[in-house]
Amino acid sequence: MGSPVHRVSMGDTWSRQVHPDIESERHVQSFNVEELTNILDGGAQNTALRRKVESIIHREPELSLKDNYFMTQNERYEAAIKKKFHIQMLAQRLGWSEDSRELHYANRSLSGDLGLALQFVFQKALRSLGSEEQIAKWDPLCNKLQILATYAQTELGHGTYLQGLETEATYDAATQEFVVHSPTLTAIKWWPGDLGRSATHALVQAQLICSGAQQGMHAFIVPIRSLEDHSPLPGITVGDIGPKMDFDHSDNGFLRLDHVRVPRENMLSRFAQVLPDGTYIKLGTAKSNYLSMVVVRVDILSNEVIPLLQKACVIAVRYSVIRHQSRLRPSDPEAKVLDYQTQQQKLFPPLAKAYAFHFVANSLLEFFHRSYSSILDRDFRLLPELHALSAGMKALVSDFCIQGAELCRRACGGHGYSKLSGLPSLVTRVTASCTYEGENTVLYLQTARLIKDSVHHLQTLMQSGADRHEAWNQTTVIHLQAAKAHLYYVTVKIFTEALEKLENQPAIQQVLKRLCDLYALHGIMTNTGDFLHDGFLSGAQIDVARKAYLDLLPLIRKDAILLTDAFDFTDQCLNSALGCYDGNVYERLFHWAQKSPTNTQGNPAYEKYIRPLLQGWRSRL
Amino acid sequence: MGSPVHRVSMGDTWSRQVHPDIESERHVQSFNVEELTNILDGGAQNTALRRKVESIIHREPELSLKDNYFMTQNERYEAAIKKKFHIQMLAQRLGWSEDSRELHYANRSLSGDLGLALQFVFQKALRSLGSEEQIAKWDPLCNKLQILATYAQTELGHGTYLQGLETEATYDAATQEFVVHSPTLTAIKWWPGDLGRSATHALVQAQLICSGAQQGMHAFIVPIRSLEDHSPLPGITVGDIGPKMDFDHSDNGFLRLDHVRVPRENMLSRFAQVLPDGTYIKLGTAKSNYLSMVVVRVDILSNEVIPLLQKACVIAVRYSVIRHQSRLRPSDPEAKVLDYQTQQQKLFPPLAKAYAFHFVANSLLEFFHRSYSSILDRDFRLLPELHALSAGMKALVSDFCIQGAELCRRACGGHGYSKLSGLPSLVTRVTASCTYEGENTVLYLQTARLIKDSVHHLQTLMQSGADRHEAWNQTTVIHLQAAKAHLYYVTVKIFTEALEKLENQPAIQQVLKRLCDLYALHGIMTNTGDFLHDGFLSGAQIDVARKAYLDLLPLIRKDAILLTDAFDFTDQCLNSALGCYDGNVYERLFHWAQKSPTNTQGNPAYEKYIRPLLQGWRSRL
Repeated sequence: MGSPVHRVSMGDTWSRQVHPDIESERHVQSFNVEELTNILDGGAQNTALRRKVESIIHREPELSLKDNYFMTQNERYEAAIKKKFHIQMLAQRLGWSEDSRELHYANRSLSGDLGLALQFVFQKALRSLGSEEQIAKWDPLCNKLQILATYAQTELGHGTYLQGLETEATYDAATQEFVVHSPTLTAIKWWPGDLGRSATHALVQAQLICSGAQQGMHAFIVPIRSLEDHSPLPGITVGDIGPKMDFDHSDNGFLRLDHVRVPRENMLSRFAQVLPDGTYIKLGTAKSNYLSMVVVRVDILSNEVIPLLQKACVIAVRYSVIRHQSRLRPSDPEAKVLDYQTQQQKLFPPLAKAYAFHFVANSLLEFFHRSYSSILDRDFRLLPELHALSAGMKALVSDFCIQGAELCRRACGGHGYSKLSGLPSLVTRVTASCTYEGENTVLYLQTARLIKDSVHHLQTLMQSGADRHEAWNQTTVIHLQAAKAHLYYVTVKIFTEALEKLENQPAIQQVLKRLCDLYALHGIMTNTGDFLHDGFLSGAQIDVARKAYLDLLPLIRKDAILLTDAFDFTDQCLNSALGCYDGNVYERLFHWAQKSPTNTQGNPAYEKYIRPLLQGWRSRL
Repeated sequence: MGSPVHRVSMGDTWSRQVHPDIESERHVQSFNVEELTNILDGGAQNTALRRKVESIIHREPELSLKDNYFMTQNERYEAAIKKKFHIQMLAQRLGWSEDSRELHYANRSLSGDLGLALQFVFQKALRSLGSEEQIAKWDPLCNKLQILATYAQTELGHGTYLQGLETEATYDAATQEFVVHSPTLTAIKWWPGDLGRSATHALVQAQLICSGAQQGMHAFIVPIRSLEDHSPLPGITVGDIGPKMDFDHSDNGFLRLDHVRVPRENMLSRFAQVLPDGTYIKLGTAKSNYLSMVVVRVDILSNEVIPLLQKACVIAVRYSVIRHQSRLRPSDPEAKVLDYQTQQQKLFPPLAKAYAFHFVANSLLEFFHRSYSSILDRDFRLLPELHALSAGMKALVSDFCIQGAELCRRACGGHGYSKLSGLPSLVTRVTASCTYEGENTVLYLQTARLIKDSVHHLQTLMQSGADRHEAWNQTTVIHLQAAKAHLYYVTVKIFTEALEKLENQPAIQQVLKRLCDLYALHGIMTNTGDFLHDGFLSGAQIDVARKAYLDLLPLIRKDAILLTDAFDFTDQCLNSALGCYDGNVYERLFHWAQKSPTNTQGNPAYEKYIRPLLQGWRSRL
């Protein structure tokens, strides 16, 4: 097992000396950090492999993230494609196969800042919705990068609501082709990653029209750019959608299809087929189309959304033991800001969530693996539950990750507003997750259609004469609350059960138990109204819960740095002037700022405008 | 009175035809929009003047905001300085004086996207803290732009906590100079706007040392760049702090002072003086230094923070009548998203706040004007109240504006993540306001030291043996809640009182009354726990309040577009593809995206990386 990479990571002037304010925090030895890291990695052998991959990645200058904050959108895109290229070369040289742990860890160490990421979404969809023949044909082309593919669902005018999509695929029996077409401006595909400037193929979700009838949404493989010279193929208008809050490294794009013909074999046909004469054969349910969305959702939670919250916690907690402000007593020196109850109250609930969601994601993944293969075999009994649970969990977890990352950012005061802190990019990136793969409100409502109490409200309204659909609309705010409460309960249960399995590591079990308690109590504290209103808890019980909650803060305080160290993110991967392992915050902030283009490039505004302004008064004398 | 500018504003292909989905919303005539606009402007004559200025500004191509989303940080800075230059030329030509309404409206129409904005902060501080002689000397130099000044308070290691600042100004009686010095790395001034690349002078807050003693923080005028060639003066290290979440147009900077000498007259001396022999004379309280912060805070709320929320509401509400999704009933066409209760529940509380805070800011401004002149005359009785109220209101209003703007952004789904929607820049810009001019948690606690209930908790803890300072720290979470509740109550009171004055305009009074009720009820709905816990309300009463709250949503729904029109922001000033007056959302989004550098510049990544990747397989065959 290699030694922790972070200890020697930045390789800059300061990292040789650890700041005493963070060094002293590590003298507390309530538990073995390395053991906790192993638990998070799923075993010591994984930790060792991960660190080996990280040390390889961090040795390659082409794979460094350090200039990210200084780049334009075009530069970020080019850098991400370049990294993808180098990773491929590396993988080939070292024999890292597709879907290998090594490539997974490489991606983690680069914070997902790689081009051509939608290839994997295309492949997940292909493997979920394609026939065995289609998988056999297209999957290897993707693996060898003989094609670069993306997944094109959302349109200018429509997102999550699949049935509303306007793109059409009309079957022409004469030529045995589908004619894929954008009939309106709002039908233009909008947002798919890698579409703007990179992809050669797109999996297009479109309304199938055959035998004179609309058959609902189906997925079609559409070649969009020439494999010879990358120019758009006939009938294709394609480009980039322009500047976004983040994801500068990704060329999210648009796609307008003007009667583009693709062969009959290009419709993914595991769950539905069109025969040569145009006969439509349904092999699955209308919902089977959602399967690929479920797959992607589960993956994104584990590999994109939750790590963003974890990193934000690491940065903010580390900074909070370096930053001093005011005095707790007039005679004291200025206190570390983490010693203030208000700061603990900001940072520890997100930290508790960062741990809770790790176990939630694992549990979701297990459930997913259990149900996925039976669904592929067209046994759809588990699909509704899988869909509802993955939708709801994606909404709950991403909402809390966004909220938590922003709390961490704000807890760093002014420096949290500097991109060099790393926090703005974590926040703007995680904030995308409330929208992609399903808008969160919509997802909660998909969960809510399960739930007993909100059903009762609905029934009352219907009995009073409102029609069913109107009644649903008038009670959606209540349904939302019900769905959130149910999901929160499920997450507490998962976290608790995961901790029960740690009985052989009592020190770690105890420290995580405090986070679990804080997580559960925080859920009560932020919803006391519901508990009081419905008589689940009395005012006196709420007071007891609040006291228990506040009493946990100083206990978690003493282990806070160790708890963030245990995530074992390298300094290069955090890419934060505030969050490095050694705590040399101010040196790094000052040094990094000097390299900004605002300092290294000239200031033409002086000659053009400032000097004329300043010297204008002389001519007026 | 000129006709509304927005009706003809964009001057592009689409604005000639208003989208029927937004046109029909304007047929509702519950009240006269123009009259409400006049109320918001403080009179019809102001509305007319504002529109006149806007039409002048929008005719100047140099003052257009339209390429903002495509620019780098350096380009944004240069564009902002250029705009400042052109505004000065315009002001000179048209005879717009400093502090004139015309310049105020010009600034509004440019969304504050102008360089050299810190000149005004410097001047506010000068007029608050300077002697009459100092004001007479420096104020005209600022007005004529003979100097470009900034205000330098925060340091790398310290922000809001003035006493913690490390910069020193040591008086040297031999030369009658102050030696201004940064003794440590953390003492480097960090964040002041216009400091990085523009300012010639800085008002530096520093620890005064004279007669062998530390005398606390005082403000010193320090020349930092040559008026001849703009090079840093001896002893000065100055530069830009690099990339930020927003404020790309502003060159926030750093400043390291190495024993820089300034004459004795450069210490602002309204409230404290140093005599030639070094004798220190105090003329004010220790708190008088805060006066300039109070001045700036009040101004920023009115002119920066609240308009950002208002614009976010305008954009999101307009987009929500164009966007359709799903069906309320299976037989219906897809519904406008604004017809969904969940969307109303997201957008109407921010809209209610956008109106509430308009009146709150007015009321704060009035109170400020009443107390300011007496404080300048060294009557400090009103200063503590003014400080506490402005601090608390700044914290409450900016917190809600950030939250509200982000809710609006998210309510626009994926398109709210595109910079072309205008929403990301509104959110990232307003989010700065929780930090600058005082971190919000600190500000709330300044208000909390007033308040009775939290004092009781504090006393209980102290009687139980905890020491005073420890007790304060252990109860700050409760103090925060108390301060917020108190401030919320004050804002409801102000809004209610403002509406009572509209008795002659009953239609407008009624529509605003609904927003005021929603605002008050929303405060209860989001804090039901506190009301139930303390027995202020029973569960049954909460149910009544919730019903009243939900019943208001459809009433506000029918006037929503008119309520956003009444703010009368021009399309150019909104600079949003989603929020234009005419509702042609998708045409504009598609058209604007084409102009992005991601489409207009080449794609070097293709030749360098994509082609080798794609064609690699051939060589391997």
